[in-house]
Amino acid sequence: MSGFAPDEFRTRVDRAQTAMAAAGLDALLLTTEPDFRYFSGFLTRFWESPTRPWFLVVPASGDPVAVIPAIGRALMETTWITDIRSWRAPDLVDDGISLLAATLADLTPPGGAIGLPMGMESHLRMPLSGFFALQAALQDRHLGPDADIVRGLRMVKSEPEIAAIRAACGVADRAFARLPEILAQGQPLDQVFRDFQALCLSEGADWVPYVAGAAAQGGYLDVISPATGTPLARGDVVMLDTGLIRAGYFCDFDRNLSMGPASTAVKEAHARLIEATAAGFAAARAGVSPADLFHAMARIASDGGAAEEAGRFGHGLGQQLTEWPSIIPADTTPLPAGTVLTLEPSVALPGGRIMVHEENIVLREDGAEWLSTPAGPAIPEIGL
Amino acid sequence: MSGFAPDEFRTRVDRAQTAMAAAGLDALLLTTEPDFRYFSGFLTRFWESPTRPWFLVVPASGDPVAVIPAIGRALMETTWITDIRSWRAPDLVDDGISLLAATLADLTPPGGAIGLPMGMESHLRMPLSGFFALQAALQDRHLGPDADIVRGLRMVKSEPEIAAIRAACGVADRAFARLPEILAQGQPLDQVFRDFQALCLSEGADWVPYVAGAAAQGGYLDVISPATGTPLARGDVVMLDTGLIRAGYFCDFDRNLSMGPASTAVKEAHARLIEATAAGFAAARAGVSPADLFHAMARIASDGGAAEEAGRFGHGLGQQLTEWPSIIPADTTPLPAGTVLTLEPSVALPGGRIMVHEENIVLREDGAEWLSTPAGPAIPEIGL
Repeated sequence: MSGFAPDEFRTRVDRAQTAMAAAGLDALLLTTEPDFRYFSGFLTRFWESPTRPWFLVVPASGDPVAVIPAIGRALMETTWITDIRSWRAPDLVDDGISLLAATLADLTPPGGAIGLPMGMESHLRMPLSGFFALQAALQDRHLGPDADIVRGLRMVKSEPEIAAIRAACGVADRAFARLPEILAQGQPLDQVFRDFQALCLSEGADWVPYVAGAAAQGGYLDVISPATGTPLARGDVVMLDTGLIRAGYFCDFDRNLSMGPASTAVKEAHARLIEATAAGFAAARAGVSPADLFHAMARIASDGGAAEEAGRFGHGLGQQLTEWPSIIPADTTPLPAGTVLTLEPSVALPGGRIMVHEENIVLREDGAEWLSTPAGPAIPEIGL
Repeated sequence: MSGFAPDEFRTRVDRAQTAMAAAGLDALLLTTEPDFRYFSGFLTRFWESPTRPWFLVVPASGDPVAVIPAIGRALMETTWITDIRSWRAPDLVDDGISLLAATLADLTPPGGAIGLPMGMESHLRMPLSGFFALQAALQDRHLGPDADIVRGLRMVKSEPEIAAIRAACGVADRAFARLPEILAQGQPLDQVFRDFQALCLSEGADWVPYVAGAAAQGGYLDVISPATGTPLARGDVVMLDTGLIRAGYFCDFDRNLSMGPASTAVKEAHARLIEATAAGFAAARAGVSPADLFHAMARIASDGGAAEEAGRFGHGLGQQLTEWPSIIPADTTPLPAGTVLTLEPSVALPGGRIMVHEENIVLREDGAEWLSTPAGPAIPEIGL
């Protein structure tokens, strides 16, 4: 159902199986939407419902096997997956667990090791009681960590994935360019959020899972609060940040604007954010580490504590709004070409206020490419 | 941050603590967005990012304690929660686990029992490796099931919650009433999905986490596929189903329309769906069971297998698109007044096709109330 050819998925499975062999794993068990979709192409908004668990098993050799509720069979049959085992869910007594256990017993040898993503940024999307029941049903197999195989594979994007993220960024570029249509003094911020989502849809977003933002005098206090009905006022710095979906892939970047003339402090903060982002971009290439990128930006942003709150200056991006890695000083792992990242420095302003800027890039062997169209140093001023 | 007064949250906590005492639990540990928000009022779209875990502890007495990433502190300080413990996340070495373990050790006695939601429809939103580390750090406490306390509390809505769901339904009512503005023969279905989401936003949705639908000749094949670019054609039955959010609460219902004149089979199927929904509504009152509601609808829908695929004829609704219970024959538990439900019968048509109808209701002592404005038996025909 994703627009990718079966070869894209076969390559992913091949790479997983090579890594599984090295790690001594006989199968991977995947339960979350992005992990499930990464190997299957199964794209639906139905994951919004928590009722039903969905399972994909990647064996040591051969194609993945889907163990899913019957309601998903018709859609699953449109993907490249051919071995589809389904049950009528919800089932109060046995909600897919015995079918999953039998499938894993089919696909792995006695004594075999089954890997699940269980490190940072992962979770198990099934009832914990179901996991314990699965363990009990598979006492002669070991359910353990996947050696971060799935996270590592997903971090490095293929060219079709990069094209998909670029297309999502293009949608947001066009929506941000139309912000002057919806920003006016006196307009309530929650209405601005609604109007901005409509702009994203009209420019080609399939849906808009994430919008954050803020508007306050001379900077804002945090970047995760929902919008209130407070009207925009002259002197407000408005920030809008969107993670929209196009063909199953996210963009994630923001824009800052000033309602009326920006203060000198705001102008300088914005220019410094753009300069810091450019410094991150200049340092970005295959082999750079998250720590390198952090320091390249922090040397300019020197944010006096804003990063202390945000915790990082960017992150991976793809099927999810945020993916591995985090751009933090503690991660000195070299990143390969094909890693897609957000560069997201923040700066502190007087009164505990902050400003945050964000762009999206992809690492190449000899440098980086912008996926979003980078903003200039002058903060746009609306309704002068 | 939710619009509710602190008393709403205190009442929820009181009820939880009464049930915890009966179940012998010294604390609840909550990790998912709806469970966390249910007791705290913490409303943000930031949960879209999988990077950071968030923890709320409900002790046996006293107010809940939030153990959260520092990026959430400013927003958390606007809620009624006053004991907020935070760490700088992401932390590659200890991502909140030792802080959480220390908090649980503060709030529970040695040998104490800590309950987590782990039954159907739940999951643990933290890395599984983190859960194992927490277990290891709390060897003199027991991490076990919450006796379905949280699920049971959340199933029965307060009047402010019912009002919030009714407001969300009103937004969708108004958006559905405007469908003729966006439906035309030749219009690609994926564009219809975008336009419909924009309608929902313009009518007051804060965001639109879920849209499903389909368009095909004489009925559709499944209800979870994403939209394709196929243009609407004369004779298509178009179904649009939305779960939109208003002030943190969902509606979840759909509408069917015919492009041009509907066939007799489609007209009859639609009328039968409306009749089945009405039969469900007539049976709905405090004390009815999901099984009762299923059979009331199935007697009329007699769907010849459509329910086999969907698995149920409706479900709970509230902070999530779908909540406990499922309207299935196997669940004979009496439902209390205040339970909010979708009634969602399906019928089979020739060629493996189905049609699905859905409305939202709340159970009262002596009957039920519509939360959505129920559709009439005649399927609307567009562009005759």
